[in-house]
Amino acid sequence: MNIVITGGAGFLGSRLARTLLAQGDFSINGQTARPIARITLVDQFSPAADLLADPRVSSCVGDINALLTPGPKGAAGIPDGTDVVYHLAAAVSAECEADFDLGLRSNLAATQALLAACRALGTQPVVVFASSLAVFGLPAEAPAPSGPWVVSDDTLPTPQTSYGIQKFIGEQLVADYTRKGYIRGRAARLMTVSVRPGMPNGAASGFFSGMVREPLAGLKGACPVAPETEVAISSPARTIEGLVRVGQTTDAEWGARTAINMPALVTTVGEMAAALERVAGPAVAALIDWTPDANIRRIVRSWPGQVNSPRARGLGLHADPDFDTVIRDYMRDNPKAIKGIPGS
Amino acid sequence: MNIVITGGAGFLGSRLARTLLAQGDFSINGQTARPIARITLVDQFSPAADLLADPRVSSCVGDINALLTPGPKGAAGIPDGTDVVYHLAAAVSAECEADFDLGLRSNLAATQALLAACRALGTQPVVVFASSLAVFGLPAEAPAPSGPWVVSDDTLPTPQTSYGIQKFIGEQLVADYTRKGYIRGRAARLMTVSVRPGMPNGAASGFFSGMVREPLAGLKGACPVAPETEVAISSPARTIEGLVRVGQTTDAEWGARTAINMPALVTTVGEMAAALERVAGPAVAALIDWTPDANIRRIVRSWPGQVNSPRARGLGLHADPDFDTVIRDYMRDNPKAIKGIPGS
Repeated sequence: MNIVITGGAGFLGSRLARTLLAQGDFSINGQTARPIARITLVDQFSPAADLLADPRVSSCVGDINALLTPGPKGAAGIPDGTDVVYHLAAAVSAECEADFDLGLRSNLAATQALLAACRALGTQPVVVFASSLAVFGLPAEAPAPSGPWVVSDDTLPTPQTSYGIQKFIGEQLVADYTRKGYIRGRAARLMTVSVRPGMPNGAASGFFSGMVREPLAGLKGACPVAPETEVAISSPARTIEGLVRVGQTTDAEWGARTAINMPALVTTVGEMAAALERVAGPAVAALIDWTPDANIRRIVRSWPGQVNSPRARGLGLHADPDFDTVIRDYMRDNPKAIKGIPGS
Repeated sequence: MNIVITGGAGFLGSRLARTLLAQGDFSINGQTARPIARITLVDQFSPAADLLADPRVSSCVGDINALLTPGPKGAAGIPDGTDVVYHLAAAVSAECEADFDLGLRSNLAATQALLAACRALGTQPVVVFASSLAVFGLPAEAPAPSGPWVVSDDTLPTPQTSYGIQKFIGEQLVADYTRKGYIRGRAARLMTVSVRPGMPNGAASGFFSGMVREPLAGLKGACPVAPETEVAISSPARTIEGLVRVGQTTDAEWGARTAINMPALVTTVGEMAAALERVAGPAVAALIDWTPDANIRRIVRSWPGQVNSPRARGLGLHADPDFDTVIRDYMRDNPKAIKGIPGS
């Protein structure tokens, strides 16, 4: 079993690779699971040393569009014999708002190249496309909904960022390549991943992690939106669990070729701050900096707070139970990133 | 006022050009109407002689993708000073099912090039994007709906053809270029145009015209689907009326950046055949050949029969009153295409 992960040096890609390597085998469309012989990590950056040390790991470092574009001998990033592709590589929302061409290239053209390369294999590989909650958007000029804004798998997305538009277009392409029998597409909309370890990235949603991560490290953490702002969260563990499950669904389990919403813990940033205070104490929670940022507010306001995920639930996936648990899991998984908290 | 029509040598493009030339002026976003100084017809074929004879008409003949791709001096097909672009050029549904790459190039890449060229103008031109009823699709494997399948402006499209997918992607790109202020996008889903004069084209929906047009010319006309098959029709006159109106809407009238459904006369092919018998007599209606075609049936079955168009109605647009009127209009407009009918 040969697996490709684009964005394989990123946080989710690395964690997915580690999970798959530990699992050892993989099942496609209900067939008997086969040992994972190779995981190819495609990224503009080198993967972590622990991954490179595994003999099953190959690394393909360079311009992602170039690596995914099929030439006469196929695409370097999608080698012959590839059975499964996880397409996680993307430019994130705030980056794409600032640089329109970047989004077109990194999100749209790269996905088009990847699908062409997968089709060129001629073997109908599984393609897990990491779409996003950000396909949903409420126009800034629209009146605020009178009650909670709930979206489900069959809600019409009206993306309000280029990132969201490009992800939604990716879903459409994946659906059509699947209908034609070129791939087995699995488009899954990831929720806001929190708590994401490491450095901040360019995502407008980055503060949903930073407002917890930085205070736990003894630093100020920005929360540029109002406490009552709703958010649909998934921990790294639940997110990876979902990606692994989605890649191994049968065509019948998957059902419609449209994208599915992954399960979400629906909470508010105020509740997240309260959970941080319960888990790590008031001094840590006091490090949250509530200075508003109109630009981030505008983007975040356009996303739905409440997400239904009937198809994901049908696959046996579930959301995190509460944000206290999510914070405790983060502290357990990232002991070096925690500073000055009694008992940690 | 400078207007570009892609697909300007085609049936709808030519008729739109004639209508605009006769109208003489054009209003953008509620501004005072200005005289039409130039209409550029972009097509792989030469426009009709009557159009070329008008001093306001320019023709740009060649590979459409090449003509729309902006170079250092812009795109040949989108000249400096362009105020309005009607993007009608497309490869049609059955062609794109037979040739996947043709659809990607003619429908997706061409639209991407056109939008890039419009953005490069820097003047926020109006772009009317001819989308299609074919964005809606019922998966072949889905159970048939228990009642009539009704779609509206906010129904989630799940296209079941590459053509439909590519049109839906075009809608998304138009929405995002509009949100960014690069264009004023107006994405309008055209209904099945009938009765379309001239020769059959490669569209799976072509028989909705042919089953009337050919018998009126004294020839056999194929209707490869069952008489109870529902269809959402728009006559050429109503379709052109809609395109002209849509291009002249204000931003406020247009509202959401999502696409609108154009008004439709909902009927069945059985009722269409009955109308033909009423208008042209039983001998003409007997020329309809009801031999089924499984391929066409599969595509047509995936389209909705009943279409609601609240936003188009809000713009003052309306559907044809009945198919008898549509047939009579066709006979009046195309006297040379009618053979052997008493009184015609």
